[in-house]
Amino acid sequence: MTITSAPRSSAGHAGSVRIGLLGLGTVGGGVARLLLERGEAIAREVGRPIELRRVVVRDLTKARDVSVPDGILTDDPANILDDPEIDIVVEVMGGIHPTGDWLRQAIRAGKHVVTANKDLVATEGAELLRLAASHGVDIAYEASVGGGIPLIGVFRQDLAANEVQSLHAIINGTTNYILTRMAQDGADYAPALAEAQALGYAESDPTNDVEAIDATYKLAILASLAFRTHVPQPEIYREGITRLRADDFRAAHDLGYVIKLVAMARRHHRGLGEPDAIEVRVHPTLLPRDVLLAGVNGVYNAVHVKGDLVGDVLLYGRGAGSAPTSSAVVADIIDIALNLNAGIANRVPFKVAGDLPRLPIAEVETRYYVRLWVADQPGVLAQIAQAFGDHGISIASCIQKETSGAPEGSAELVIVTHLAREAGMRAALDAFARMGAVREVANVLRIEAP
Amino acid sequence: MTITSAPRSSAGHAGSVRIGLLGLGTVGGGVARLLLERGEAIAREVGRPIELRRVVVRDLTKARDVSVPDGILTDDPANILDDPEIDIVVEVMGGIHPTGDWLRQAIRAGKHVVTANKDLVATEGAELLRLAASHGVDIAYEASVGGGIPLIGVFRQDLAANEVQSLHAIINGTTNYILTRMAQDGADYAPALAEAQALGYAESDPTNDVEAIDATYKLAILASLAFRTHVPQPEIYREGITRLRADDFRAAHDLGYVIKLVAMARRHHRGLGEPDAIEVRVHPTLLPRDVLLAGVNGVYNAVHVKGDLVGDVLLYGRGAGSAPTSSAVVADIIDIALNLNAGIANRVPFKVAGDLPRLPIAEVETRYYVRLWVADQPGVLAQIAQAFGDHGISIASCIQKETSGAPEGSAELVIVTHLAREAGMRAALDAFARMGAVREVANVLRIEAP
Repeated sequence: MTITSAPRSSAGHAGSVRIGLLGLGTVGGGVARLLLERGEAIAREVGRPIELRRVVVRDLTKARDVSVPDGILTDDPANILDDPEIDIVVEVMGGIHPTGDWLRQAIRAGKHVVTANKDLVATEGAELLRLAASHGVDIAYEASVGGGIPLIGVFRQDLAANEVQSLHAIINGTTNYILTRMAQDGADYAPALAEAQALGYAESDPTNDVEAIDATYKLAILASLAFRTHVPQPEIYREGITRLRADDFRAAHDLGYVIKLVAMARRHHRGLGEPDAIEVRVHPTLLPRDVLLAGVNGVYNAVHVKGDLVGDVLLYGRGAGSAPTSSAVVADIIDIALNLNAGIANRVPFKVAGDLPRLPIAEVETRYYVRLWVADQPGVLAQIAQAFGDHGISIASCIQKETSGAPEGSAELVIVTHLAREAGMRAALDAFARMGAVREVANVLRIEAP
Repeated sequence: MTITSAPRSSAGHAGSVRIGLLGLGTVGGGVARLLLERGEAIAREVGRPIELRRVVVRDLTKARDVSVPDGILTDDPANILDDPEIDIVVEVMGGIHPTGDWLRQAIRAGKHVVTANKDLVATEGAELLRLAASHGVDIAYEASVGGGIPLIGVFRQDLAANEVQSLHAIINGTTNYILTRMAQDGADYAPALAEAQALGYAESDPTNDVEAIDATYKLAILASLAFRTHVPQPEIYREGITRLRADDFRAAHDLGYVIKLVAMARRHHRGLGEPDAIEVRVHPTLLPRDVLLAGVNGVYNAVHVKGDLVGDVLLYGRGAGSAPTSSAVVADIIDIALNLNAGIANRVPFKVAGDLPRLPIAEVETRYYVRLWVADQPGVLAQIAQAFGDHGISIASCIQKETSGAPEGSAELVIVTHLAREAGMRAALDAFARMGAVREVANVLRIEAP
């Protein structure tokens, strides 16, 4: 046993809840600082002290913002996973390998787990929850989505009497910052991304955020909880924000919309005896300017839920960052410590009502915004309207503006459709591609309202 | 024992959780309907059936929207309070007497309690929570504030690692409906109230809502939780909405504000060794048009919290109504049923960190909006500015407009101040009262931003 080197602070008596922390980065540093500096307030919530017993880091020599007591830093995960005195393993290191294996080892050793790892929860969460249940330990993951915004507990418990009809969420702060800058400054995508990178809101390789991969992990977690089913992340339809242009923001604004990267899920009631289907998708979306979600700007996140009883509920806050995420991690630690006090685990069972089939993207119906460059000549609009009509798509509005900077002989056409099936839209776009008068389909965006 | 008359439905086996419902009005009817019609989904959340065993009503002969099984209606509360087979008493009858006594009797008999009764929780909640703890039973009251919006659980658990700095809430749907109509239609107070009454949003005697009494009960509950203290409802400073006029909405709009009835609480850090003070007040408030709370319209409610870790969090939804409130009541029932499954109670202790003194209203500092009718003659503005200056109040902006309908020789003056102490403002208003040139102080409103 290595615990003799652990500090014997006043919090170190036999009655404390002992934490092993995996990772000491942005979030881990925040969690360590809270446990070390806010011990009295946290102990008041739990009725006994929470002790930071061990911290596993990759590099022991690295300089860090947070100073932890002598002797608790280690680079060997066995010092946490094999220490029988550690009650709760808090995982804030990220990644799926070796993290998943380490957490399985912790669970098998009878340790409770708190994780902020959305990739892991989205990918292996169902398996980890089953494993935890079979070993009589808890696993909590409030920090995996939406930073400090209460979401997991809300879906698991507060809305439990509801059948959730839909959720629409802005759950990636990086892209929301970029889109907010594009909307407010008239900036194009590339300079807005560069600014976000300069400010540290976007990574040097921004793919995970701007291609909406991050958002699909978070949506997989939320939709699984909301619908009491398992939504595999790879099955979520996804489009990133890289094709958006200043022209799209200008046109959307003129039409009364804002453009946001929206992660959404919706239940479809089907015939008697048939299970409900769900659609799950993440893509740039035109939102009417007057809906609350349209006012969520900068790095803020929000989730708009419709339950059949509560109606509309919106939860808003900072979706990332050291302090907000640490707030959620420590709330989970407190919750598990309360279970430890009561001598219980798995108080709120992991519930799957059944497998709900996903609605194929081709069957999804939305309104569309289509921005086209067409030949500036008579009869073109008629051809386009005809192509839409051939595929069952009805035009709600059409704007052709004289645009400075338009290529010679070209005109920009912005069309908003009534509800149309994705399959029909794709067929219409194929028809445009064969049409000499359509020079370019600049963008096709879906229009939604929560 | 009277339980032989209870129905022996399929849900009536020994393993069910048995509910006694006090009240079958708007919320009670919604709860009964959910328990009767959504039994399968609720049982899936709990792992066993929830049985509606008994319903106490005042008048057995009254026609009702919801039909309950034969034999479970009774007008004798003893049929619930003395029935040893009832696990959870759900109180949706309202009022403090005899409700409080009945719940104390239930708690002493070892029954858990779910209540939607804000008046009772605000007035006797601390006592009931202590009594419940001493008898090893749970008391849950999510439905007492904000209908189906998750609030109680959020303050008790999700934000537990935070020191809450402030909360700003729109928590009375009736007044928010009236103020929304006044803002959108340019209506005056009396017709907007009459419309709310015609639609059933306001009662025939609207005092409890329009004088902000209802909001003080809700704020007492939220602020007590947020600051881990006890905020007595009578100590909350309160002003109603009856003095607001169409002219105030017009002037506020011109200045870039909306007017809302805001219930707010704020922590004040004081000197070393001194406990923090808190201010708690409910009054019509000018909110900058671009804050999220300003976009909360109609019967919707929202709470904007600032925590020192999470930063800004907003929770939004329907604050009242049968279905949203029933959603919260049933979530509480499910939560207690999960505790029953685990054989525990009082898992989350009722925590009071200490008594935080209230900041006297005279010491409160805000910006102010002051609308005056003054004599339309030279030197008046100088006199007013002098009176403000004499009491340490600095003017940020001043608008004098030619108004149609102004009394002969009078002019309307709208002044916005910088931060000023309430005591200073009251002294300035006293000075105006002695000033012949000030014909009328039409309204004085505080300006806040969450």
